[in-house]
Amino acid sequence: MAAPLHVTFSAGSTGSWRIERMGPVIGDGLPLAERLAVIEHRRPEPCGAVWSLRGTTSHTRYTTRPETGALEAKQQGLGRAQATCAALIPIRKSETWWALAQDERRAILEEQSHHIAIGLEYLPGVSRRLHHSRELGEAFDFLTWFEFAPEHAAGFDEMLVRLRATAEWGYVEREVEIRLSRV
Amino acid sequence: MAAPLHVTFSAGSTGSWRIERMGPVIGDGLPLAERLAVIEHRRPEPCGAVWSLRGTTSHTRYTTRPETGALEAKQQGLGRAQATCAALIPIRKSETWWALAQDERRAILEEQSHHIAIGLEYLPGVSRRLHHSRELGEAFDFLTWFEFAPEHAAGFDEMLVRLRATAEWGYVEREVEIRLSRV
Repeated sequence: MAAPLHVTFSAGSTGSWRIERMGPVIGDGLPLAERLAVIEHRRPEPCGAVWSLRGTTSHTRYTTRPETGALEAKQQGLGRAQATCAALIPIRKSETWWALAQDERRAILEEQSHHIAIGLEYLPGVSRRLHHSRELGEAFDFLTWFEFAPEHAAGFDEMLVRLRATAEWGYVEREVEIRLSRV
Repeated sequence: MAAPLHVTFSAGSTGSWRIERMGPVIGDGLPLAERLAVIEHRRPEPCGAVWSLRGTTSHTRYTTRPETGALEAKQQGLGRAQATCAALIPIRKSETWWALAQDERRAILEEQSHHIAIGLEYLPGVSRRLHHSRELGEAFDFLTWFEFAPEHAAGFDEMLVRLRATAEWGYVEREVEIRLSRV
């Protein structure tokens, strides 16, 4: 368990990821840009960013020990040579979601929506890192970053369709999808 | 459920709370100061602070719906005229704690340590606001702010003794206690 890592996703004309396509899924989108820079450890951000989103990694909030064990046994890290495709999906959930108690949120997320179980099916092809933004005063609550090889892109698309059809997604009030390829 | 509130606790020569006494409970303390300013909404901080600690309020992380209901039925807010005593207790938990899964942390916090149940016993005399600091890159994980009338000070002291004797407190690796009175 590492200390929280601060990450800034900065869109503009520089960065090692090319934005192939981007658009709103629910609610407002974000301004179009050509490139995305992923900046860790609060290093300086590029000048002239079109938009910047900030978040930090953190401890898990819902996964039980058996689920954590299953995830850790299958998942792989970021930065794999073959993982030339990426996606950044900023999400904001409603005030109704945040007013729920822990057991209510857990029940919707997993027992009803199988969020953890669905994600597990797409490991190790799709790597994932979740960043929390809500406590940073950002416009989104979460920024999820995914990396995968081109042959796993169809599976990734399928995973998004399944997650977006869940009861949990009824609490998502803003979602943007940004698809990228490594330059 | 309000949006997260950013709060800075700034110790120095100004502020509406006088520091009556302060010292380390576990691990390193903090430099002594005379006054504490509680600054909400990212308003400007006083110049020449001896130390500043930052955190944000957030959604609950462990309480179930019945527990949330019991807390909400008994608790009172900050700023009561008779609540002229306060305490700020910054805490950092160990990496071992943060590496535990959600169900493991919940079991230690409540089923083993009765953290929520103990706190409930001292409502409404003791008001409380929890601030999360870990994801802000701060030295502490939590800053808990308490307000109470002088006649509840003994009860507050008793509550601290009971909490510090729990299994959960075995995961606390730094704790400072700062006791204050309203100027």
